Amino acid sequence: MLKVRHIFKTFDNTLHGGFALSSAKELGERKIIEIILKCLEEMPNMPVPFGDDVSAVNIGHGKLAIIKTDMLVGKTDVPPRMSFRQAARKAAVMNISDLAAKGVEPVAILASIGIPRSLKEIDIEQIGIGLNDGAREYDAYVLGGDTNEASDLVISCTAFGICEKQHLMKRSGARPGDIVAVTGFFGKTASGLKILLEKLSTPPKIGRALVDSVLMPCARVKEGLALAQTHAVTASIDSSDGLAWSLHEISRASNVGFIVDSLPVAPEAEEFAKRHNLNVTELTLYGGEEYELVVTIRPKLWERAKKAVETVGTALIRIGLVKKGKALLLKRKGETVPIEARGWEHFKTVKEFLT
Amino acid sequence: MLKVRHIFKTFDNTLHGGFALSSAKELGERKIIEIILKCLEEMPNMPVPFGDDVSAVNIGHGKLAIIKTDMLVGKTDVPPRMSFRQAARKAAVMNISDLAAKGVEPVAILASIGIPRSLKEIDIEQIGIGLNDGAREYDAYVLGGDTNEASDLVISCTAFGICEKQHLMKRSGARPGDIVAVTGFFGKTASGLKILLEKLSTPPKIGRALVDSVLMPCARVKEGLALAQTHAVTASIDSSDGLAWSLHEISRASNVGFIVDSLPVAPEAEEFAKRHNLNVTELTLYGGEEYELVVTIRPKLWERAKKAVETVGTALIRIGLVKKGKALLLKRKGETVPIEARGWEHFKTVKEFLT
Repeated sequence: MLKVRHIFKTFDNTLHGGFALSSAKELGERKIIEIILKCLEEMPNMPVPFGDDVSAVNIGHGKLAIIKTDMLVGKTDVPPRMSFRQAARKAAVMNISDLAAKGVEPVAILASIGIPRSLKEIDIEQIGIGLNDGAREYDAYVLGGDTNEASDLVISCTAFGICEKQHLMKRSGARPGDIVAVTGFFGKTASGLKILLEKLSTPPKIGRALVDSVLMPCARVKEGLALAQTHAVTASIDSSDGLAWSLHEISRASNVGFIVDSLPVAPEAEEFAKRHNLNVTELTLYGGEEYELVVTIRPKLWERAKKAVETVGTALIRIGLVKKGKALLLKRKGETVPIEARGWEHFKTVKEFLT
Repeated sequence: MLKVRHIFKTFDNTLHGGFALSSAKELGERKIIEIILKCLEEMPNMPVPFGDDVSAVNIGHGKLAIIKTDMLVGKTDVPPRMSFRQAARKAAVMNISDLAAKGVEPVAILASIGIPRSLKEIDIEQIGIGLNDGAREYDAYVLGGDTNEASDLVISCTAFGICEKQHLMKRSGARPGDIVAVTGFFGKTASGLKILLEKLSTPPKIGRALVDSVLMPCARVKEGLALAQTHAVTASIDSSDGLAWSLHEISRASNVGFIVDSLPVAPEAEEFAKRHNLNVTELTLYGGEEYELVVTIRPKLWERAKKAVETVGTALIRIGLVKKGKALLLKRKGETVPIEARGWEHFKTVKEFLT
């Protein structure tokens, strides 16, 4: 989840000297996951390794069952003005997005819901409607779940789908020379969150688009399915943790570097940045929860991939190239700067959305 | 989850007059689920209806993918003296138990974990070990998950398995004349929780068994799989919500009544009740989280079912009969009394385990 990840997400290992008394906050999400992974016996012949967007189980006949679970926490993941309906919808969509990034059609959603005792009937109904919204927008159904009492609203969704093993797009196949592409422009959610949290003024024309990008995120299911059919994709991830972070994840899984020479800046973010004297590169690279796909494409099949995505009504935007080595670089306005392994810094200062 | 369900669980509908401003606490779990279900479009040809222990998706070749998600919340579901390792193990086991009750072998566990910022590295490691414990004890593997920041420890597990469609044991097939049976004796968890919460003194000999039943619950996977092969079972549920509640669930789903003429009282619970002047029927019927299977069996296949469960080292204990109508009755010591649709009352008074 965006905010959490930005709190926990740090590559600074100075605090991680194996002190058993370090707190979760000091450890960061990556170290926490590392600690947990060390405790797990690995299933033999896992079709998808730990650390990819989804988990998978061989079900025979060349098919995989794909499962993903991720949790929305009211206090940290629901910004001001997001309704219960939107929060529940988002809880479903963020899991569906991970399936989309693997080229998998979502079939079923399950929801385990933690409900504060004080929550009202009308709010609970809105949660039900939102879950249904999130699933049905992508032709999936909510099949079940469970309710529990919790101090804070917690909606933990599980998305389930089935795919041909050969169509699954992992994070790990990018090769030097591949084209890096995305399914949309970035910077809107970081801007939108600034409007919601810091109440920065914006003309309604662009303000609406920026805020909606936060409140009503969309998963790129059609695009993921279309790309999976082309066999052009060597690596794929969703950008729920921000463009920079997504590139770093592919870099780690594929052992490659990147040069981004065409930053995919959303025009609304450009205008917002100008108006408030903000760094648009920052908004574009280090935001998050944009749920666009970030993919690497075999150069020979670029046209095929582009056409496949266009066929479902979306532009596939070339932003750079996969390189040898581990460097992640951004070329912009004559300068070349490193792409850092972090989300949007400003989120770090946001302690809690709801009080 | 035990405690929550006992707080929320009430058949008293006087507060449920459709007031949009009723709180979750007033509504109760059943009404909350009802409200959410009303919002959901139902998947055509759902292999398992809403309200059963698990969800299912047809995956062809006569097989079903079985998915279950349920959440453990630190504040309400982790009693004193339960370690982080035990809590995480329980989060996995309680989901595996639902698969067991359907006759489904668990294959994979996913865990979405909400972690308070103050949690220590050593505790996080114990959570990882506990998750692995829970999965590996039943030959499943933890395949993935996600970490998030939360105010309270939340471990939302998803269990996944595959089964032959014809072997799935639902809640809905019980018929008058069927034998009602269970895979173990009841009352230990209710007693154990009294020891943990109210610090009632007990000789170590029985105290250990009672406390362990709470801290180290076990799922009846072998028993469920053995029973599914016999085709003797007409309805099945796990007793995570207590024996009385489980019988009421089968009653509702199958539209039948029950007469229980042989209450399956655990000897340790019997002794504990005597020592503390407690009502042993109360402890046995209205406890919860015992994770035994409660099944109804075709009378002609009783011996086959009994033998199948004995083959895996467990006794299948006959406790009564399925009857026409909706009455649930307990015959005990010459008296016949109704079996109420509730969990253990005393839990209602327990606000929070952890402070």
